[in-house]
Amino acid sequence: MPSPCIGVFDSGFGGLTVLKALLELIPGADYLYFGDTARLPYGSKSAETVAKYAVEASNFLQRQGAHMLVIACNTATALAFDEIEAATRIPVVGVVEPGAQAAAAASENESVVVIATEATVNSHAYQKALEAHGMDAREMACPLLVPLVEEGWIDHPVTEQVARIYLEKAFTDGFQAADTLLLGCTHYPLLEAVLRRAAPEHVTLVDSAASTARVVAQQMQTHPYFAAGHPTHPARLKFYATDSAEKFKRLGAHFLGQPIEQVEHVDLKE
Amino acid sequence: MPSPCIGVFDSGFGGLTVLKALLELIPGADYLYFGDTARLPYGSKSAETVAKYAVEASNFLQRQGAHMLVIACNTATALAFDEIEAATRIPVVGVVEPGAQAAAAASENESVVVIATEATVNSHAYQKALEAHGMDAREMACPLLVPLVEEGWIDHPVTEQVARIYLEKAFTDGFQAADTLLLGCTHYPLLEAVLRRAAPEHVTLVDSAASTARVVAQQMQTHPYFAAGHPTHPARLKFYATDSAEKFKRLGAHFLGQPIEQVEHVDLKE
Repeated sequence: MPSPCIGVFDSGFGGLTVLKALLELIPGADYLYFGDTARLPYGSKSAETVAKYAVEASNFLQRQGAHMLVIACNTATALAFDEIEAATRIPVVGVVEPGAQAAAAASENESVVVIATEATVNSHAYQKALEAHGMDAREMACPLLVPLVEEGWIDHPVTEQVARIYLEKAFTDGFQAADTLLLGCTHYPLLEAVLRRAAPEHVTLVDSAASTARVVAQQMQTHPYFAAGHPTHPARLKFYATDSAEKFKRLGAHFLGQPIEQVEHVDLKE
Repeated sequence: MPSPCIGVFDSGFGGLTVLKALLELIPGADYLYFGDTARLPYGSKSAETVAKYAVEASNFLQRQGAHMLVIACNTATALAFDEIEAATRIPVVGVVEPGAQAAAAASENESVVVIATEATVNSHAYQKALEAHGMDAREMACPLLVPLVEEGWIDHPVTEQVARIYLEKAFTDGFQAADTLLLGCTHYPLLEAVLRRAAPEHVTLVDSAASTARVVAQQMQTHPYFAAGHPTHPARLKFYATDSAEKFKRLGAHFLGQPIEQVEHVDLKE
């Protein structure tokens, strides 16, 4: 029996933070990672466009042999989860519901602030998911944080100033006492240090990478391969990108926390 | 004889600053503007991807009846001018050569700093064009300026701080005395006030929108329609965007400096 193959998809590099969490929890699987780098970012685009791109990416990973699909992109999950699930024959896990669950578990006063891209906020996917868990939720779009991460200004005074501007607006009007900050974008875990300094002191930071990996691990426990106690091999990784493979290797290693050896360039149009 | 139809192309909204300059100089023409908003930005992508997108956009405008093509995008001009010209049967004008000409005319000590996107800088198209005009040129990538414009932080302390960081790095090592700052991205004219404050006092700002429009106007003088002295009508404008038409109307008006009535959504894949 072949080891299970998990397809992980993001508009670019951010989803590698989810892959990193998956590798820690489920080291014995095969992984296909697809970064739609020629069309990133999704966070400023319309629901129709994001859904179209996300379904193409999902179909690609399915054709490559994925047994399960992880949408490691908040925008794609928020705007297109239903379309992706409808277009796919394999189980699909997104990052919104696991993130909302983790925030609900972390919050003691049931008041959560979510920061995310413009498109994710406009979809109100997090607000709905958090309210379903009994939380009060305030969403705040932070369009500059992704470009700041991609410029490499990870622990930079400008990034801290920008984070303060966004968070001061978020933790106000009934949300001064919110005790949980949910990072609703896979780029944001890289800004953890800055966000911790910019957020009110009493606030707990929660990101969806680890909680998404836990949901996938739970589903994998019942997979015949793991259930049968097959001896596991080290994770096998394969990377695909729609823009330059070289650039993906260079920037991706930063997010994954380990070198990326080989990337295959793909053109979804062909 | 129909009035000439000028196709203007950009990855998004920035090219509308060029269209604005064209409308001032050549009010009697028809204009087709194409913004590839579903795949923007180009500035962080590879030459292959940018060339593919730009050629698709050029072909689209040609099919819609453009008699001339203006590549109102520095990245597309810098990375793909030759590919676009080879794929197109109509005259093509880019923004790099007119920008370089304007900077060469403005500089008294033949020392020019160019700020642009990462992809434009990596292509060294401006450096080559400026050196051909006898200039010394220093290029500086400013990846955060486009997101700051798109966040609407046009005259904002953070934007000024970011501009200072980039410009301090640029006006150094033999370029302290450079007397001209060339804005090598069509978003940057919106930041003119901030850039003027952040640049050394003795520096002249030059952008390629006005100089590109002058090159097009020059070519139009010999067009039979204008040469024959036809009575001109007010400019007729038609807009196409690959992402949401609504969003294009809303954001585009800011760049064009006038309301945008109607935008047609197009999908280049079909």
